[in-house]
Amino acid sequence: MFIYYRIVRYKDEHKKESIIKATIKLVNDIGFVSSSVSKIAKEASVSPATIYIYYKNKDDLLVSTYIEIKKKIGMALLKDFDDTLPLKDTLLRSWKNGFFYIAENPGLFQFTEQFSYSPYGELVDKKDVEKYFEPIIKVLQTGIEQKIIKNVNFDILTTFIFFPVMILSNTRLCSNFEINEDNIETAFSLAWDAIKL
Amino acid sequence: MFIYYRIVRYKDEHKKESIIKATIKLVNDIGFVSSSVSKIAKEASVSPATIYIYYKNKDDLLVSTYIEIKKKIGMALLKDFDDTLPLKDTLLRSWKNGFFYIAENPGLFQFTEQFSYSPYGELVDKKDVEKYFEPIIKVLQTGIEQKIIKNVNFDILTTFIFFPVMILSNTRLCSNFEINEDNIETAFSLAWDAIKL
Repeated sequence: MFIYYRIVRYKDEHKKESIIKATIKLVNDIGFVSSSVSKIAKEASVSPATIYIYYKNKDDLLVSTYIEIKKKIGMALLKDFDDTLPLKDTLLRSWKNGFFYIAENPGLFQFTEQFSYSPYGELVDKKDVEKYFEPIIKVLQTGIEQKIIKNVNFDILTTFIFFPVMILSNTRLCSNFEINEDNIETAFSLAWDAIKL
Repeated sequence: MFIYYRIVRYKDEHKKESIIKATIKLVNDIGFVSSSVSKIAKEASVSPATIYIYYKNKDDLLVSTYIEIKKKIGMALLKDFDDTLPLKDTLLRSWKNGFFYIAENPGLFQFTEQFSYSPYGELVDKKDVEKYFEPIIKVLQTGIEQKIIKNVNFDILTTFIFFPVMILSNTRLCSNFEINEDNIETAFSLAWDAIKL
């Protein structure tokens, strides 16, 4: 029985992963509006009915895909996370992780960027995303308490410490920024100067 | 004859403006892929043939709309531009202009953001956009020469001095940032700390 459940569970996860992959590919290729559940099913080689086992409707599928990607990004940023290091080093490590993850997974980022700026962005409960970034949010809060970084609105902090990674990684926005250790460290020094007290 | 030409020209500009407005509305409502030239024509109350007088095809229409919006944004940022002021004050004035222009014209920004992050972004010649921001680019270059701001890649500078305005204005990304003079000045102080030497 145990083995049977494990197989079912594995098949489930595998199917969900195929559906998410197909959703990302199709949305990046033809946009949110044209990506119907039936087209996504075809791309994932499953029946539309299978998609409806896991997701209520197209909106649910798109939002779930977005949150799944954010989870992956959060895990990538937190690779080798060590909050015993000085805050500046902790953040720089996350920056480097972020740049290299984006470079390796451009499709994921194309999806989340288009999603954030589209009307679908409103359907996401911010808390469902923030939980994957909690350790970083915590070190920033500690930094504020210890008067290492500025005590400003969290939206302002994230604008200067998280968004630059996404903007600079986007070759459409920043075609002259080459991603290498030196350039990442230079850009990070501006982010750090922005937030440090 | 002179009056006749002026009327033709006025009618032309008026028609182009309606087409651009219709393009922005339709793209924001239903996305890039679904916005066909015939749907845009219907929204603008002109015939598709009229659109083809001014634009080669759908790609040309979308790119032209993007550049037209960037022109409007550039003009808004440069309102009361005065490069005899200290650089910090010149930039802060542009920030305030930017925030208030975005708040008054959310549709324009929704279009440009979706556009920049979509595959259409690649069709734009950056020079066609940059020319509308030239006075600001010039003061930044002067600031680098005078060792007031850091001598880093221009993509890094714009990431910290232009993008924060757009990110913080986007209520989907920054729902806790209220746009008022105090908050704009606080956020600007981080941008300035990032770029200043």
